[in-house]
Amino acid sequence: MCELLGMSANTPTDLCFSFTGLTRRGGETGPHKDGWGVAFYEHKGVRLFHDPEPCATSPIAEFVAQLPIKSKTAICHIRQANVGNINLANTHPFVRELWGLNWVFAHNGQLPGFSANSGLYEAIGDTDSEAMFCDIMNQLRHTLPRDAMPDQLAHTLVTLAEGYAQQGVFNCLLSNGDWLFSFCTTKMASITRRAPFGPAVLKDVEVAVDFAAETTPNDIVSVIATEPLTSDEAWDVYQRGEWKLWQQGEVIACGKVDVPVYENGQRVG
Amino acid sequence: MCELLGMSANTPTDLCFSFTGLTRRGGETGPHKDGWGVAFYEHKGVRLFHDPEPCATSPIAEFVAQLPIKSKTAICHIRQANVGNINLANTHPFVRELWGLNWVFAHNGQLPGFSANSGLYEAIGDTDSEAMFCDIMNQLRHTLPRDAMPDQLAHTLVTLAEGYAQQGVFNCLLSNGDWLFSFCTTKMASITRRAPFGPAVLKDVEVAVDFAAETTPNDIVSVIATEPLTSDEAWDVYQRGEWKLWQQGEVIACGKVDVPVYENGQRVG
Repeated sequence: MCELLGMSANTPTDLCFSFTGLTRRGGETGPHKDGWGVAFYEHKGVRLFHDPEPCATSPIAEFVAQLPIKSKTAICHIRQANVGNINLANTHPFVRELWGLNWVFAHNGQLPGFSANSGLYEAIGDTDSEAMFCDIMNQLRHTLPRDAMPDQLAHTLVTLAEGYAQQGVFNCLLSNGDWLFSFCTTKMASITRRAPFGPAVLKDVEVAVDFAAETTPNDIVSVIATEPLTSDEAWDVYQRGEWKLWQQGEVIACGKVDVPVYENGQRVG
Repeated sequence: MCELLGMSANTPTDLCFSFTGLTRRGGETGPHKDGWGVAFYEHKGVRLFHDPEPCATSPIAEFVAQLPIKSKTAICHIRQANVGNINLANTHPFVRELWGLNWVFAHNGQLPGFSANSGLYEAIGDTDSEAMFCDIMNQLRHTLPRDAMPDQLAHTLVTLAEGYAQQGVFNCLLSNGDWLFSFCTTKMASITRRAPFGPAVLKDVEVAVDFAAETTPNDIVSVIATEPLTSDEAWDVYQRGEWKLWQQGEVIACGKVDVPVYENGQRVG
């Protein structure tokens, strides 16, 4: 399984602190050593870093962790391969253009029998995750108008996610730079930081930050991760089948659908 | 105007030497200070670095210049903005997926009146360059079968390039990771290095390399650039309207078409 990290904020914010914590799990405090990638939106542009090396020891990850890239939306993924070899084409997050915007997707889980219908968007690598992403993009293009509002998009995305979740574990983050959609079938947690900001300590490495020194009173910054990244804050744990649509650091829509339980690739509930 | 750099090789090769030379022109020995980007293919995957900062002073460019990323095909661009603001979305090279492959495009020139027909591929930023790239992708998808051979592709690409060149300056590099297409209306030069390899000295910065120490006798490495990057090697200068299709470091097809002369945005010949 992999780990996901997302950020939604109302002001451009760097991801250095959370990224530093997550990368330790990529071969050091966690087994996710089969590559990593991150996408930082800057308005309509997106800055991408992908590396099939373990991120705990990747020089590129070390460099990115100290880059003050400021973004309102970011998606990061560290991989423990199950379907698909370890190579660059199989490294999340995946990106496609739709309606003149960059859409970015990362997935944690496994849908071993998944096969996408053919469509305009095709997978480049051979992961089930990228096949699902292409399926999502094909379905969105097919069923929605280009000016669909976030609540329409959320409705379609939840319906698709519910379908994938019938076939296996499907935790995902998806964004078009304007909003960030999150769906959980097994593990996901979030935290929203706003004034008064306090200190926080990472779980995976001895690093502390005082957010009060790095923020203004109006900032709202939410972080979504497979598992909580800090040891001294109260994270909201997603329930099975729960989804949240984030924008500007806040939840603008959310809900919960029934999804089955999968363990080790087998449906058990 | 911008500067282009491409590489085609029969073995994964790093671009450090050429990239180091080119980046000096991004605000130091040249005026191309409005951002830079590079795409390195690794099989079907592509590693991207984009930055709207001047590359001569960009920490990311400095970091990339010493990264031993090995690639058989790479495309790099440094920008001097004319159409479109300086921001990440307007930073070349541009990437789109077609037929399950990453297609990468960079352009030097200006087609001020260019407007693309609507199609599946849409520009994210507001440069004429990205609009042309989307037009190319739409036309390829529309006119060619997915298993088109490089000579069929070249024929279609040359026809399209000839059309763009009627409207302005159109120097470009385009690749799907298998081959690299180059088209020149004003400035482009190439060099093919093969055994016996010798030393070379960059024009723009005091750096020398002994390729003999870094290669094997079977290596063939070609570099295509807007202007020659070294001072002690004989580069082949493209003629107006000349195109070359590169694969594995060698030209597999080439030709020349009649194109008009543009100066300062005006057709003068």
